[in-house]
Amino acid sequence: MKTIIINIGNELLNGSRRNSNADLLIETLTPVGAEVIGVVVVGDDEREMTAAIVTAASRAGLIILTGGLGPTADDLTRQVLAKAVGARLVMNHAVERSIKQRFVERGVEMPAINLKQAMVPQGGVVIENNRGTAPGVILNHQGVFYVALPGPPAELQPMVEGVLKPLVEEKSEAEQSRRWRTLRTCGLSESALCEKIEDLFKTDGNPSLSVTAHPAGVDLRITASADKKQAADAIIDSLEKEIRKRLKDNVYGRNSESLEQVVGRMLDSRNMTIGVAESCTGGLLGFRLSAVAGSSRYFKGGIIAYSNSVKTGLLGIPEEILAEQGAVCAEVAEKLAMGVIKALDVKIGIGITGIAGPDGGTSDKPVGTIFICVADRDGANGTAKFTFNGDRESIRWRSSQMALDMVRRMLV
Amino acid sequence: MKTIIINIGNELLNGSRRNSNADLLIETLTPVGAEVIGVVVVGDDEREMTAAIVTAASRAGLIILTGGLGPTADDLTRQVLAKAVGARLVMNHAVERSIKQRFVERGVEMPAINLKQAMVPQGGVVIENNRGTAPGVILNHQGVFYVALPGPPAELQPMVEGVLKPLVEEKSEAEQSRRWRTLRTCGLSESALCEKIEDLFKTDGNPSLSVTAHPAGVDLRITASADKKQAADAIIDSLEKEIRKRLKDNVYGRNSESLEQVVGRMLDSRNMTIGVAESCTGGLLGFRLSAVAGSSRYFKGGIIAYSNSVKTGLLGIPEEILAEQGAVCAEVAEKLAMGVIKALDVKIGIGITGIAGPDGGTSDKPVGTIFICVADRDGANGTAKFTFNGDRESIRWRSSQMALDMVRRMLV
Repeated sequence: MKTIIINIGNELLNGSRRNSNADLLIETLTPVGAEVIGVVVVGDDEREMTAAIVTAASRAGLIILTGGLGPTADDLTRQVLAKAVGARLVMNHAVERSIKQRFVERGVEMPAINLKQAMVPQGGVVIENNRGTAPGVILNHQGVFYVALPGPPAELQPMVEGVLKPLVEEKSEAEQSRRWRTLRTCGLSESALCEKIEDLFKTDGNPSLSVTAHPAGVDLRITASADKKQAADAIIDSLEKEIRKRLKDNVYGRNSESLEQVVGRMLDSRNMTIGVAESCTGGLLGFRLSAVAGSSRYFKGGIIAYSNSVKTGLLGIPEEILAEQGAVCAEVAEKLAMGVIKALDVKIGIGITGIAGPDGGTSDKPVGTIFICVADRDGANGTAKFTFNGDRESIRWRSSQMALDMVRRMLV
Repeated sequence: MKTIIINIGNELLNGSRRNSNADLLIETLTPVGAEVIGVVVVGDDEREMTAAIVTAASRAGLIILTGGLGPTADDLTRQVLAKAVGARLVMNHAVERSIKQRFVERGVEMPAINLKQAMVPQGGVVIENNRGTAPGVILNHQGVFYVALPGPPAELQPMVEGVLKPLVEEKSEAEQSRRWRTLRTCGLSESALCEKIEDLFKTDGNPSLSVTAHPAGVDLRITASADKKQAADAIIDSLEKEIRKRLKDNVYGRNSESLEQVVGRMLDSRNMTIGVAESCTGGLLGFRLSAVAGSSRYFKGGIIAYSNSVKTGLLGIPEEILAEQGAVCAEVAEKLAMGVIKALDVKIGIGITGIAGPDGGTSDKPVGTIFICVADRDGANGTAKFTFNGDRESIRWRSSQMALDMVRRMLV
């Protein structure tokens, strides 16, 4: 189902608000069969909006508009959409009643301008808004579905899940089934990975394969078409098997699975507990491990040993080591990991120390030098040194990613 | 300077990669005078790309293209741009040499396909890429600036800062000066805030005012135009003064300043040290405090007391309290804050405990119930209970935001 997304609002173009709705729509609707062929962001401007709608209508079967449904003068989506498809705007009495009711409940007189939100292009169906006053609208005109949704992500999200996703799913079932699956990898560079599977790439083939590199991993997407969903899935299964054979345990998960979810599942199923001792990452690793619901079963906590006094005081790292080798070395990473095992009585400990920058680098240990140790009660299981490029944020992120990956490889 | 951004790449439309480049460009270039009138995302498709470029050229003076500069067959930006403006692609010998040099250094034979990246539309100027092989291109054709940048954010970002931003700045200086400033607030709801400054809103006025609500705060943007930059700034200064008078210490910063930067500056200037004891946030607060470069001067570290055994063991919280009241109560927040002051020997301690969900809520203490205490050596300075809506991620984020804001208000 060819789809175009039109995001409307000056705030999206002047830096006041990031455009998260396009990503949300893409991430929710492509897995169920939407083929997004374009995204357009325009301001609250009738001419721009009209041009975007008319152009989209000639190319897509589903046009999703977000924003511009509020009560104020710069909210133009209803009028512009009605005009673009040649429909009149009519008052929807159910919506009218519910808006009036809202004001009665609040004991406030309703400004007349609010009734603008009860106007719907003739033939349009209303999508109820449980989190705000602006309802959504679905309109089918000359074989094209127009769906207008409110701009605030909290109001839009339930409509996407509850109405738009099932609609796309149903329409796509009827057509030929196009399915995809992402394999997530960590540990191979993009080029090293591509070399191993070069012969599997067929740009216009079925299945097709595409690669996306992230700061700490590479994703591989397999896409396949068939007359039935199951048949498409079978094609994907077979290619996945071949890829896994070649990439081995560098593949850690599928689709939106995160490394912390995968590691958490492994720890959980083995009844193992884990704790962190973080210097340069300052709590990021604990934050990621605890981002998984139910993580309290295996994640016990940790010590943010940002200053040396915490390293010596709470984790028992001898001052001599810090004085002689500095805080950034393999031995300190190991002592951090072993120290947290002892302090928290956990099975696995992770220690991270390094220089996240922008200052503090030396010729010996430049910014981006990171030592990570994963240990169990018998001692260090693995200690690794990394030298990451990038800024403070990305160095810290990559450090946490590598630490999680080291735990995963230990448990595989 | 009217600007249109064209982001190119199938990965942006199929959910493989979020489109962060549009936001980065908008956030970097609008403050220095770019007026972004549209964003278009298209796949790696010659016809779509050409249509986007031709349409943009009739409306904007600056067209920024991202992506499609790599060496492979689906990277089409160079060819399509050259064709769209009627220029030939010519080999740039400096780029050719530098690409060849890269392969020599790596001791690898260069695949001929890589030389594609040395082809530049005639009349185009190359922007060096320090982080990858694909250089950027600037082309001035019939009064329109075309700037093509590589897709990977790490490669694009330095080019935006180093080349594009100064270019836009210079062009905008010459025109009438349009300036803006954002005031960041925390502690008032959008409607409560708007009530206090209602009379200052003038939609088409000069200065104009716009509001954006975020999950944990509200931003106010003041925009003003004048014939000189200084004059526009003076208009903004005067409105900012009036707004601050009314919103008092709910205004915490300007433009992209984060709460952790503001709090960090305050701690630093007062020579104070801080530590965290986090239960439900799992390290997020420490991660945010340590995100600021130079934070080691005031942030000493913390204890991630995710499990009760860490709360009793490392922070000395009596087991009776946990047994009688549970881990989520004001007293535990206070003991966490006081405990970390003692354990880390810091001046200020923050304790956070709560239920981030999705499970673990009771009728008494539903998901979203959070207790936060900020203490100094004399005891609890303030303890607050919050009940946040939203999912696990947003509950944890808001908790960290409120904790930082409590520290800020204590230090103001």
